[in-house]
This record gives sequence, structure tokens and C-alpha cells, in this order.
Amino acid sequence: MSDILSTDVAIIGAGPVGLFAVFEAGMLGLKAVVIDALDGIGGQCSALYPEKPIYDIPAHPAIDGQTLVDQLEAQAAPFAPYYLLEQQVIAVEPREGGRFRLKTSTGAKIDAGAVIIAAGCGAFGPNRPPLAGLEAYEATKGVQYMVRRREDFRDRKVVIAGGGDSAVDWALSLAEVAAGVALVHRRPKFRAAPESLRQLDDLAKSGRIEMVVPYQLDGLEGTDGQLTGVVVSTLDGQKKVLPADVLLPFYGLAMTLGPIAHWGLGLEDSRIAVEQRNCATNVPGIYAVGDIAVYPGKLKLILSGFAEAAAACHAAHAHIHPDKVVHFEYSTSKGVPGAA
Amino acid sequence: MSDILSTDVAIIGAGPVGLFAVFEAGMLGLKAVVIDALDGIGGQCSALYPEKPIYDIPAHPAIDGQTLVDQLEAQAAPFAPYYLLEQQVIAVEPREGGRFRLKTSTGAKIDAGAVIIAAGCGAFGPNRPPLAGLEAYEATKGVQYMVRRREDFRDRKVVIAGGGDSAVDWALSLAEVAAGVALVHRRPKFRAAPESLRQLDDLAKSGRIEMVVPYQLDGLEGTDGQLTGVVVSTLDGQKKVLPADVLLPFYGLAMTLGPIAHWGLGLEDSRIAVEQRNCATNVPGIYAVGDIAVYPGKLKLILSGFAEAAAACHAAHAHIHPDKVVHFEYSTSKGVPGAA
Repeated sequence: MSDILSTDVAIIGAGPVGLFAVFEAGMLGLKAVVIDALDGIGGQCSALYPEKPIYDIPAHPAIDGQTLVDQLEAQAAPFAPYYLLEQQVIAVEPREGGRFRLKTSTGAKIDAGAVIIAAGCGAFGPNRPPLAGLEAYEATKGVQYMVRRREDFRDRKVVIAGGGDSAVDWALSLAEVAAGVALVHRRPKFRAAPESLRQLDDLAKSGRIEMVVPYQLDGLEGTDGQLTGVVVSTLDGQKKVLPADVLLPFYGLAMTLGPIAHWGLGLEDSRIAVEQRNCATNVPGIYAVGDIAVYPGKLKLILSGFAEAAAACHAAHAHIHPDKVVHFEYSTSKGVPGAA
Repeated sequence: MSDILSTDVAIIGAGPVGLFAVFEAGMLGLKAVVIDALDGIGGQCSALYPEKPIYDIPAHPAIDGQTLVDQLEAQAAPFAPYYLLEQQVIAVEPREGGRFRLKTSTGAKIDAGAVIIAAGCGAFGPNRPPLAGLEAYEATKGVQYMVRRREDFRDRKVVIAGGGDSAVDWALSLAEVAAGVALVHRRPKFRAAPESLRQLDDLAKSGRIEMVVPYQLDGLEGTDGQLTGVVVSTLDGQKKVLPADVLLPFYGLAMTLGPIAHWGLGLEDSRIAVEQRNCATNVPGIYAVGDIAVYPGKLKLILSGFAEAAAACHAAHAHIHPDKVVHFEYSTSKGVPGAA
């Protein structure tokens, strides 16, 4: 049995526009697999403003983000989309015959006739410090951006960078298990809860946490690819090296295109350039819709994304079935599966 | 006091897309006047399929035409649009400063900063027979397409053309008042209610209605612009002239652009050619959206019309306020007047 999921359209992103693309694909007889990094569908709407009313969804004088998503999910449901959640598409490879092979961060493989990228503003990702050799140390886990298991840091020399809650709270927490914790911040003042700041002060005084202020990250040192030290410097150029097995920069999250940036697509300011009429990218068979797509005159409105999803699905249909003419029908005459 | 209605945007057509254009205009601070030939808002949706479910309005798994219109009307309501119903825009004249003067069939005058045509498939109009000189006889009422008052036909020689209900029923009715009724049809068989056909047979036998079958209309004859006769012919070329004061062709209704066809706009197959990115026609300040607008890749979907309405309103805003930058805001941050 094959472990490859075969589908007509792979839709990257389960936000409102990705969900509507499932419906439009279904209306054209195309099956869809939807991949999203979050652990539920709905994208930003569900994650960031589930209860905030939106006023510019046509024929909804006001609708909150979660209801919008629920409605779109119900509209897509008759076409039985396959959702792959909590995973990122890390690779999209064109195959013979115009099809694509996708791989996700959890190892899932998808064989798709066309790809529609509806990834909104991209994925949330950590702000990465601009240090030489950073990627190599990320690969060996010398630099990490989140703590999954505190035990992984037991008896290790940890340098934490940042001035907010995450930096302070992880410094406090890891001080209990690590061989040493240094906290680097460019100002002496931290933004964190008063009780956390009081504890930080105590641990700094007792020497359990080394306060490295006002310093900023300046470089990474290592042997055979393993991190051994973090170079920090003051604004006036004084440098020192902190011995370190691991650096944890906590500089907040930002939107990032993530792996999408490496698929050979034409980009404009971290968005994907498309033809408005069919939302085609520069790679035949890959389309982009919604906030991530850009063309002259583009309006970043959900309702524009809906129209783009329809255009992309028609174009995807032509890509998958070049010899098949779509008999264009109004939804009133055609109906949808399972509708009354 | 001026009898001219002054507004930012004149929207021609009160169907779903026209109504959504009111909302989008309002979100940009533009006031709207909406003109429609029907006696209520909603266009085709309300007129032709008020109770039929539509499945492809985003975030409405199923919605009937009237509910769709009601929702769009409610969404537009905070911006207090001015509806001019039961009238057609018969003229659009560009004025100095990029503004427009519109006139309607009931005499209303509108001064508008921009015009958005959302006229769907245009207006319903009669199918007109392809006869030389037809327009001149239409102007003198020698050729008419509907009977407003039966008394207008008293003691006149009437030729009726057509094979359906309207032709048959008006032949029966006008036979009671007219000086003579001739019924022209290209086949001996008529499509009408059995009782109507029985009455037609009786009146034909008694000589009150002259059955001119199988004949078709071939020409018009007249003196000083007044109709005197209708030329009819058989398929094999035999001709005869029917004395006539008035010809009533009942060849059904068809969609027609109506007066819009004469405003100097670029047309393609009875639709208005626009740039997709801003829905601009070839006349600066006039935009077309929805089914009446055409561009490469156009999908005739209501949801595409919504996106076009948004694009046109942004472009209209730039036309009206060339020096004013739109501070683009999400509806969640901005809200709408009167919203909770």
C-alpha cells in the first residue's frame, strides 16, 4: 500500500480563502487536500480574532472570525476535503506530466495535480538574529527558538537573548536544571510580570543567572559544528564571549514565507507574484491566492481572496484536465452533493 | 433649490453586486445613488429566483436569492444609499472636472463623481425583428412591443407577429376592439393554452382574425413615417402586404444593454470591456462590475462581482479624490457606522 496521498489539488493554508478553494475545487469535480501549520482550520481568523466582528464579508453585515470559518468549513464539507494539520509543506517538487510531489514537516507525502497556495501572510516563525553561520548552528541545535522539553537543557550551558516574557520566564525555569544561564539584553530593563522580575533579581544576585546587560548578540563560536560560545558586544564595541552549549533567542514571532520562499516562485516583498486573471505563479500548475498573492491593483480583502480562489480552481482544472471543457453552470442549477 | 441629486458614486443596477458596491463605497467614505429599472432592489436574484438556493456565495453554504439581497441591503444600509427605482439611466454625460451628469427615464438628474455600472445582463427588452427602417416606425409607434392600454388600438388595423401565448392572447383581445387583426406566424402551429387556441380557431373561422401562416415578417411600408403595411413572405419567397396601422411583434424578451450601448463604452458581445485590476472602462471615471463586465479570464460568478465592486470603488475613490490616499484598514479595526 502506498503511503502517498494522491489528490487533484493540494491547498496550502486552511484559512478562509483556502477553505473556499476547497469548495470551488469541489464544484469543478476536483478533490482537495489542505495542509496547515496550525492545529485547527481557520488560519488567522480562528487563531487571532475568533470573536472579532468582520464587516466586509459580502452578505454578512457582521460576522465573527470563528463563525466565518465554521460557515466556510460547512460549505466545503460536502466535497470531503482531507485536512493535514500541524505540519508545514517543506518541499514541492514538479513531476512528469505536470503533477507535483509535496512533503510536509511530519513526513506526509502528497501527489497532487496542482498546488494552490493560500498561506495568508505565511507562517508564524521566530525572528532570527542576523549572525554569521546561524543556519549551521540551527541544524545542530546549537541555536533553538523554543523549549519543547526542559530536560533537554539539563546540565548544559544556556545563553538566552531577549527582553520580554519568554526570555525572562525561560531564564527562571532553565536556571533550575541548566549548568548555567546567561541572559543577554540590550537594555537593563525587561518587559515581564513583576513577580518574574523579582525572581530574576533574586537569581541574578545569587549568581544562578548571569545578567549580560546592556549587551547584544554579535557572533557564534564553535568546534566541529557544535556551539561553544556566544559573542556579545556593547553599543560602544566592547566584546566578550559567553561559554555556551545552546543559544535561545527570544525575539518574538513574525510572519515568514518559510519554505515557500525556496520553491522557485516569483516573489515581491515576501508575497507571491501572480497573474490576476488566473492566479498563476511563474511555475505552471502552482497558483497563489489570498493575502500571499500579489498583482497590480491587489486589495488585501478576504472577499478578493474568494474570487481569486475561484479563478485559481478554474485554472487548476484546466492544468489537470487540459482536454476537458468546464461546462460552466450556476450553482442554482447544479447544486452541491448532499444539498437539499 | 436644485432638482439635481448630487452624489459621489452613481451605481447603475441594484442587484447583489450593485448593493455590495454601495457598502464598499461607503467604507471608503463615498456616498452612493443606486438606479434600477425594476420596482425593487435585488435585480435578477429577487425577480427571477427569490426562493432558489444559491450554493456558491462564500460563507453561505446555501442562501436563497431574496435572503442574499436582504443581507446585502442590510450591509449597505449604514451608508444610507439613495435608491431610484423603476427608472432606467438613459444618458450619461461627462462634465468638466471628471464628473458626470446622468438622466433617468423618469426625468431624474444625478450629478456624480464616478459611475459604476452593475447592470447584470442589462435590462430585459423585447426581441426586435430585423426589418429595414424599424427604428423610425418604433419612434412613431407604428411598431410596438407591448400593449399598455387596449383602447389605444380601437378601430385600428393591427398586425400581430409571433406564435406564443402573448401573440395569441393579444390577438384574441384586440379582435374585440381593432378594425382588423392579422396574426403572422412562420408555422401553422401555435404554443398557447388549449382554450385560447380554440377561441383563435373560432375567430379565424368567423373572419375576425386573419391567420397569416406560414409567413414571416419581411418589411415595413409607410407614408410620411406612418406605418401603412407589413410585408410578409413565405419560405419560398411569396410575398404579400398586410394593411396595417400598427405592428406588434411578440418574439419574447431578451436581455439587452439598452441605453448603455450608446455611451461610448468599449463593448464585447454586449458586455462592457474593463481592466480587471480596477474595472475601469475606456471612459475614465466609468467602471463596470458583475456580469455586465468582461475581461480575459472573467468568471460570471456573484462572488467575482463582489471583488470587482471593491476594486471599482477603490478606483472610483482615486478618480474622485486624486490627491487623497486611502488609508487602507481592515473592517475589524474600522467598523461601520451604527455597528455594535
